[in-house]
Amino acid sequence: MAVGFTGLATLLPICGIRLGTMSAGIKVANRRDLVLFELNEGAQVAAVFTRNAFCAAPVILARQHLNCAQPRFLVINTGNANAGTGERGIADALAVCERVARLGGCASNQVLPFSTGVIGEPLPVTKIISGLEGAFSALNAEGWQDAAYGIMTTDTAPKGWSRCIEIGGKTVTITGIAKGSGMIRPDMATMLAYIATDAGIAAGFLQECLRDAVDQSFNRITVDGDMSTNDACVLVATGKSGARLETVTSAGYEAFREALHDVCTKLAQAVIKDGEGATKFITIQVDGGASSDECKRVAYTVAESPLVKTAFFGEDPNWGRLLAAIGRAGVVDLDINKVTVFLDDVCLVRDGGRFPDYREEHGKAVMKGSEPTVRIGLGRGANSTTVWTCDFSYDYIKINADYRS
Amino acid sequence: MAVGFTGLATLLPICGIRLGTMSAGIKVANRRDLVLFELNEGAQVAAVFTRNAFCAAPVILARQHLNCAQPRFLVINTGNANAGTGERGIADALAVCERVARLGGCASNQVLPFSTGVIGEPLPVTKIISGLEGAFSALNAEGWQDAAYGIMTTDTAPKGWSRCIEIGGKTVTITGIAKGSGMIRPDMATMLAYIATDAGIAAGFLQECLRDAVDQSFNRITVDGDMSTNDACVLVATGKSGARLETVTSAGYEAFREALHDVCTKLAQAVIKDGEGATKFITIQVDGGASSDECKRVAYTVAESPLVKTAFFGEDPNWGRLLAAIGRAGVVDLDINKVTVFLDDVCLVRDGGRFPDYREEHGKAVMKGSEPTVRIGLGRGANSTTVWTCDFSYDYIKINADYRS
Repeated sequence: MAVGFTGLATLLPICGIRLGTMSAGIKVANRRDLVLFELNEGAQVAAVFTRNAFCAAPVILARQHLNCAQPRFLVINTGNANAGTGERGIADALAVCERVARLGGCASNQVLPFSTGVIGEPLPVTKIISGLEGAFSALNAEGWQDAAYGIMTTDTAPKGWSRCIEIGGKTVTITGIAKGSGMIRPDMATMLAYIATDAGIAAGFLQECLRDAVDQSFNRITVDGDMSTNDACVLVATGKSGARLETVTSAGYEAFREALHDVCTKLAQAVIKDGEGATKFITIQVDGGASSDECKRVAYTVAESPLVKTAFFGEDPNWGRLLAAIGRAGVVDLDINKVTVFLDDVCLVRDGGRFPDYREEHGKAVMKGSEPTVRIGLGRGANSTTVWTCDFSYDYIKINADYRS
Repeated sequence: MAVGFTGLATLLPICGIRLGTMSAGIKVANRRDLVLFELNEGAQVAAVFTRNAFCAAPVILARQHLNCAQPRFLVINTGNANAGTGERGIADALAVCERVARLGGCASNQVLPFSTGVIGEPLPVTKIISGLEGAFSALNAEGWQDAAYGIMTTDTAPKGWSRCIEIGGKTVTITGIAKGSGMIRPDMATMLAYIATDAGIAAGFLQECLRDAVDQSFNRITVDGDMSTNDACVLVATGKSGARLETVTSAGYEAFREALHDVCTKLAQAVIKDGEGATKFITIQVDGGASSDECKRVAYTVAESPLVKTAFFGEDPNWGRLLAAIGRAGVVDLDINKVTVFLDDVCLVRDGGRFPDYREEHGKAVMKGSEPTVRIGLGRGANSTTVWTCDFSYDYIKINADYRS
């Protein structure tokens, strides 16, 4: 079960969006595995995708469709990633889009396809197409909760969040759902996340808003350093609230930005809390960097070190492993005598060695908590970054040694 | 137990070198944990060290001593890495060198210190100094086998190899020992390895020979991507065989080079076969790269992917994870349609997808072996590289979640 999971938050509908979720029997029977989003005419759509060279067929197609038409539907299946499937994979994803288009009365390039699941198996197109009529029948504005369940794969908990703000006397709502718990190291993208707002934002500026939010949320997490072939994050603006945002100087933009970041961060953190086998949600905060790039490099090197991750699982404040990871992160001319390391408020390292007042039991007490923070000071400048990760447990091995069986 | 371990090879003495091994009770009682090498006057010494910014006190000192004097002794302790110990760590390592110098009748900067074990605890200098007299008494030319045991930490098997060649009618011998099984991702260095030959080679050229050999052996392995603070690899040339090598054009150089590479490769592979929790010894061979650098990047990305490593542990030919790792290795403009992936001789991937003739049971059969090879063709050029790694098992988690307890 996910670290600190206390149930799915209330997900507020977004005027202009309807969702339908179905069990199409893609990998197993009687599991919700097919989700359809219907977007209002005029809805604006932004998206970021995985940068993995082996991106999946639906990623290739979704990118193309987004470039040449205004989307009316998103169709998502779990149980099969349609990745590593060559030309046939493209044809299969297109067949799904065509069927959605026929049922929904639009052009096939107005449908964006998404898939997640096992890589390298042919997409079971027939099952998906058979399930689509049911998904259309199920379309309703309150469908966010079902959809949050419908996009889960190895996730143990659904992930969603909503926020409301006021802009110019109008109530603006943002709701998002996400899935993902392994093969998590997004880069300019994420696992699968779908966020919508009823604010009115033109596609170009919407893309800027999304990139900005993703960079501070989904691009700050890692479970295992493995970047997926299928990552995608979509932001839809329906415009139905009547509030409009044109640029970063528009009235209400700051409030919108804060709320969008909050939704994205909540979803990203939920992915880590549900990381495969996770027993700890770990925040790695790096301050004092000469650049934000070097902060990020240090944070990720620590976050992805198997020895650091197993030490957290073992609740062992083995700060030597933290130092070793910091030291190999490739920071040029790092002065180790200026480096400080804290676990929550407990100082472990100062002046190139153990802080004289440090007591093992204090470090141990922090490690026993379920949400510890590692704070690293580099003593080189004023830049900072924060990355979220989880520990490596027996269950991570179990889940991933047995995933396909 | 190490993959395929069938007992320590016969280790041939090197004229000019004597070794003494002792139990000094550094971390636990009655375990060999202190090793002394005595080198003949005139012995030439080359060494490479970790590039981790947090390198240990003995690494700092050994580098300094090697730069300013001709070494007569190497002193190695296990059970404590003397890393992250600040100024005191330097003073402690120096105290050990001074005692060796007094007992051995040389200057303290003619002693190179090495430590391995837990990071961040003060070096138990008194115990080490007490053990030194015993180590001196134990010095003998046949001491290689004892020393191979004496440098072990979490290793489950000792690691050593010997080779003999003829140069100009003279028999030249090379013998090496190594330790290491976790925190293994050397870079221009290795865990701890000590290699000696009775060939006569001046220090400058000896350093070239060592770098060349390390680059093809110790710098081609990874267990967990974690680079140690204490890595060191030392090559001693005693000159006692009477054979001399001056440059790469000297008669016999090629035979010497091949034998030295063989010894280093055997030791490096032994480290991986004894990787923490390893059940598989995995060779990752990348061909067809536009540069050897990109081959290395692909090979290491695959070798260090937790999802690839757990798939090997689960004996699951989940080639989608191989593709995902290749795709995120940062090869610019990779044409996925030219990529091929084989498991031993079984073709899994061609033309951007699963090879049509591929059958799951064929892949599974390779995975069930203890020493599978992944062959990746990039289809971009004529460069190649090979990296060796192991799988990620429950025991890796167990060993590293409990290491200090």
